[in-house]
Amino acid sequence: MIKVGIVGASGYTGGELLRFLKNHSNAEVVAATSRKFDGIPIHKVHPHLRDIDLKFENLKPSEIDADLVFTATPHGASMKIVPELIEEGVKVVDLSGDYRFEDTDVYEKWYGFKHTNPLDAVYGLPEINRAEIKKADLIANPGCFPTGAILACLPIVAEKLVDTIIVDSKSGVSGAGVKPTEASHYPNCSDNVAPYAVTSHRHMPEIQEKLRKFGDVKVSFTPHLVPVTRGILTTAHSFLKEDVSSDYVKEIYDKFYEGEPFVRVLDTSEIPRLSSVRGSNYCHIGCFDIDENGRIVLVSAIDNLVKGASGQAIQNMNLMFRFPETESIETVGLHP
Amino acid sequence: MIKVGIVGASGYTGGELLRFLKNHSNAEVVAATSRKFDGIPIHKVHPHLRDIDLKFENLKPSEIDADLVFTATPHGASMKIVPELIEEGVKVVDLSGDYRFEDTDVYEKWYGFKHTNPLDAVYGLPEINRAEIKKADLIANPGCFPTGAILACLPIVAEKLVDTIIVDSKSGVSGAGVKPTEASHYPNCSDNVAPYAVTSHRHMPEIQEKLRKFGDVKVSFTPHLVPVTRGILTTAHSFLKEDVSSDYVKEIYDKFYEGEPFVRVLDTSEIPRLSSVRGSNYCHIGCFDIDENGRIVLVSAIDNLVKGASGQAIQNMNLMFRFPETESIETVGLHP
Amino acid sequence: MIKVGIVGASGYTGGELLRFLKNHSNAEVVAATSRKFDGIPIHKVHPHLRDIDLKFENLKPSEIDADLVFTATPHGASMKIVPELIEEGVKVVDLSGDYRFEDTDVYEKWYGFKHTNPLDAVYGLPEINRAEIKKADLIANPGCFPTGAILACLPIVAEKLVDTIIVDSKSGVSGAGVKPTEASHYPNCSDNVAPYAVTSHRHMPEIQEKLRKFGDVKVSFTPHLVPVTRGILTTAHSFLKEDVSSDYVKEIYDKFYEGEPFVRVLDTSEIPRLSSVRGSNYCHIGCFDIDENGRIVLVSAIDNLVKGASGQAIQNMNLMFRFPETESIETVGLHP
Amino acid sequence: MIKVGIVGASGYTGGELLRFLKNHSNAEVVAATSRKFDGIPIHKVHPHLRDIDLKFENLKPSEIDADLVFTATPHGASMKIVPELIEEGVKVVDLSGDYRFEDTDVYEKWYGFKHTNPLDAVYGLPEINRAEIKKADLIANPGCFPTGAILACLPIVAEKLVDTIIVDSKSGVSGAGVKPTEASHYPNCSDNVAPYAVTSHRHMPEIQEKLRKFGDVKVSFTPHLVPVTRGILTTAHSFLKEDVSSDYVKEIYDKFYEGEPFVRVLDTSEIPRLSSVRGSNYCHIGCFDIDENGRIVLVSAIDNLVKGASGQAIQNMNLMFRFPETESIETVGLHP
Repeated sequence: MIKVGIVGASGYTGGELLRFLKNHSNAEVVAATSRKFDGIPIHKVHPHLRDIDLKFENLKPSEIDADLVFTATPHGASMKIVPELIEEGVKVVDLSGDYRFEDTDVYEKWYGFKHTNPLDAVYGLPEINRAEIKKADLIANPGCFPTGAILACLPIVAEKLVDTIIVDSKSGVSGAGVKPTEASHYPNCSDNVAPYAVTSHRHMPEIQEKLRKFGDVKVSFTPHLVPVTRGILTTAHSFLKEDVSSDYVKEIYDKFYEGEPFVRVLDTSEIPRLSSVRGSNYCHIGCFDIDENGRIVLVSAIDNLVKGASGQAIQNMNLMFRFPETESIETVGLHP
Repeated sequence: MIKVGIVGASGYTGGELLRFLKNHSNAEVVAATSRKFDGIPIHKVHPHLRDIDLKFENLKPSEIDADLVFTATPHGASMKIVPELIEEGVKVVDLSGDYRFEDTDVYEKWYGFKHTNPLDAVYGLPEINRAEIKKADLIANPGCFPTGAILACLPIVAEKLVDTIIVDSKSGVSGAGVKPTEASHYPNCSDNVAPYAVTSHRHMPEIQEKLRKFGDVKVSFTPHLVPVTRGILTTAHSFLKEDVSSDYVKEIYDKFYEGEPFVRVLDTSEIPRLSSVRGSNYCHIGCFDIDENGRIVLVSAIDNLVKGASGQAIQNMNLMFRFPETESIETVGLHP
Repeated sequence: MIKVGIVGASGYTGGELLRFLKNHSNAEVVAATSRKFDGIPIHKVHPHLRDIDLKFENLKPSEIDADLVFTATPHGASMKIVPELIEEGVKVVDLSGDYRFEDTDVYEKWYGFKHTNPLDAVYGLPEINRAEIKKADLIANPGCFPTGAILACLPIVAEKLVDTIIVDSKSGVSGAGVKPTEASHYPNCSDNVAPYAVTSHRHMPEIQEKLRKFGDVKVSFTPHLVPVTRGILTTAHSFLKEDVSSDYVKEIYDKFYEGEPFVRVLDTSEIPRLSSVRGSNYCHIGCFDIDENGRIVLVSAIDNLVKGASGQAIQNMNLMFRFPETESIETVGLHP
Repeated sequence: MIKVGIVGASGYTGGELLRFLKNHSNAEVVAATSRKFDGIPIHKVHPHLRDIDLKFENLKPSEIDADLVFTATPHGASMKIVPELIEEGVKVVDLSGDYRFEDTDVYEKWYGFKHTNPLDAVYGLPEINRAEIKKADLIANPGCFPTGAILACLPIVAEKLVDTIIVDSKSGVSGAGVKPTEASHYPNCSDNVAPYAVTSHRHMPEIQEKLRKFGDVKVSFTPHLVPVTRGILTTAHSFLKEDVSSDYVKEIYDKFYEGEPFVRVLDTSEIPRLSSVRGSNYCHIGCFDIDENGRIVLVSAIDNLVKGASGQAIQNMNLMFRFPETESIETVGLHP
């Protein structure tokens, strides 16, 4: 049984980590930090987690006695606490963007501030880095949009079938976090679809950097906020460089993801749906249709808080400690 | 390992039974019947259940080789197949209304047709009938509204504090079933709240018959359809016969439900919320506020498809076979 | 053509006043005040109002040169500016709670602070006070819940058929205003139904004070937030003192509201729906069902921002200036 | 005052025609046909339209005594009744796809059946065909997706700045019509985003045929169903052939749509939103952002039932009869 700490446990990703770890046979949460809710029982903030005998604590990272710490902290905040934890021999899964880029310049350009503590980290997408994750001390847990987009596009990029991809993503509002804002105000997002950061979202360079390791590809990315609580539906449009069939592409995907515990390539004619993965760590991929102009459409569905954040973080922890990869995150989606 | 059959497995309650039983250590689904989808793999109808190696089959009850059968069949249909199963020594949990009433006249009056096969059944609400359920061969699984309403009102009725209750319930649309109708048509139910069967819903006499075993009480019941997928929020209004305090009533509830694995009495000032129980078998109860007119308000939240149907059905199965009561249904709600 | 000012024009009720007045033949908006948005064009805040040649201004009431001012200001703020306007001979329609109560003690008890400037005002519900409104200088525009509840219950109270009413109301989130809060955060209110201020909402004494002029009645009130943008669906439960029929009650309602321009009594078997009144000044009333316990159910539907606020405010203005009562607010609901 | 008939008046577009025509100074509805609801008052089907003294009638086109008939009939049905009406000298605005294509072969390919009655029709998008519409006897009212897509892309195509466009559209569920189906079943579309007819939607060739009159362009189109009642948000992605700036493109749009009564080009940094046009005949266009790959993003918002159907149909009628173009359809959107 390893000891686990969660820094920034009062947000949605903190809540999801607690939800999964509650049932983990090999890991126990020993600390859930929060400045704002210091001393408050967990269930006052996460009303569904009623039987966890734990309170939020306002702890410094050094005060956490754990084998692994999840840093569910904002961009810019993680870099201030992760190095100290690593130095003390604590393994870290960081859920922010701070350690996702190999190229620090790209990070600084898109995040708009100086990176004060660059460290070597492994990008925690098990479908591409499983072996490295197992040996890592610091995991940069992928962004939610990148998880959906990379998994949707990876095989076709690796096969060199495309050189440009337009990723049009639709995200649920929980992706904007637990804090009320104009964007998450019910009358603003209900009955609406809102494109945002239309050509300037920080997940674009992340998608691009990771895909480029597999093939030379330019990514254009536009996210939309949709009136959905959880889930990201990614529609990737690409023009094929070769005249291949839909079935041929599907076979590439079947082969690429064979044996992956959390990726499911759907049958032809099935369309991924958010409810199929709601609350679960699965990514469903489908479509493969090709139109008269040679455009292929690939669609993926994930839960932004699970495979797009906390579920994947636990999948990474499981790999790092050689636990069964699916431990505590094997439940299927909540449909309907 | 017992063998389980599901009759009528293509609806929402069938899907939920399959979702839970997938992870049950002591039960295995050997047959999932459907006339319409005979020969079709499960995941074509329940798109989240991708790794179940099972097809729908058009089987007669007698063709199912099982220790227990869940009959997820419509009112009026169950009575045609349950007796045969019972006769063959198969235990049955029936999810329809056919065996819920002690008084067959009440059934016939409210359901509008003759009951052709009355049998002795135990009303499967473990919070009131746990001992009987353990010994039963036939369980009448409670209705969704009655589950929420009875659990909300039971302690106060048992304590003889009220003699009239107005139950104003708000149900998610999945309660209307998998089949598209005018009532479930998105443009009709989105952005709307629709009272229906305002004084004539068949769950009223069910609530009343069960509560009356604990105290002399008249129940008035009005359900509403709200733009929610899963969940029933029940607001029960009653005028207190005695001048008691909110805290006093809360204590009665704390005591009444002490040790119950799936009922949680919330702290004062907490309001039950649907997301706290979404996808889970829990019932949250709270409020206890009393106004100037002596009206007390009790609020409960359940997932209509789980504690209001399939989760409770499995809880009953667990009791009948002396499995741990929470086996396969212990997950908490999906919040947010 | 009269000159109209709107104090507090950047909120939802301000936006609705501007939307309706845009098409008013006899009234012109000369000032729309806002401290926060001083100098900003209207459409930057109200994105649907693109062709209004007006900017928000940070004006004192005395700086507004108008025949009538709508004070769309918070409770407690109105009382600081209304007296000055009245003194200068400006007519006022106040949308806050500050002038709604005849009994200042009741106001102070429920609103929790001292009323510094009590004035004689007419409660602006045209269906009960049309004659007085025409002569008034100061109108207290009714609350949103009271508008729905009073119109639903008035005839049956006036007929002395009931002495207790339980009002269970379901409100859209726009009722919580334009400012993002936890209550209006999409992941909190989507897929949920949240009772609030369960026995302590300030609209209860308002409903009661106004209904009591027509009959001796006790009102118990509980509001709920539902995942709807606009609209209040009110379900009023009452036990009848006499054994009358549903048809008899419907006739009372037909007669009571005969000729009312904005109230429609629905046919038997029709249920009021929010989309039928969405965006409109209409109130639909229906149901009249009576159950075995003698409980009658009355249901009304309004748009909280229109008949529950700004539409009714303009109806009052129309009456005060002897314009046609329906001028600029005659459009029907937006269904679906 | 002209006499107007509506064939197929019980659907959503029929309801919208009735809603607008209710307030038209120059047109009166003399017949609203429906086979299913023959003899039924309008408000039983369109519950918001309570004061229209009209019943549905099961009439043949020849039995309608009107100056203009709106055929709100399905694809394939219109071609069976329109020729007869035209022959009798009745003007027709057809809301189906039957007369939208200049090339009948394209129609037959994409709609999958033989066109039995080709006629000369004017494509009723006033922004491109105003002069022809004024002289036309038969108007093919544009499809909902094409209206949003063409208006979003027209200026940039006319300016020859792009040769390929990927149109990723998000439509509200009312676009699927009044009849309940699996696609419109609340538990299926709530909390989900569903791409459909991913490369095979019949609106693609319509968009392409119309845009090609202005520039040589290939259109790829994918629609999505989103949990919204009304509205289409269109995101058009194109790679610019020349290195122009965002401001330059915005100026082209400003100039192109100058004076258009129902198109509004938004300021830089404003994003079109569905609530701004909800229930209205406006089309809002904005964005103009260009990313590092030279991709420009154009976004438009319309109400699918209004500018995408019935509002535009009335705009066409107004032009045909030289009524003021905005008569009865000048109201702004319902925000929030």
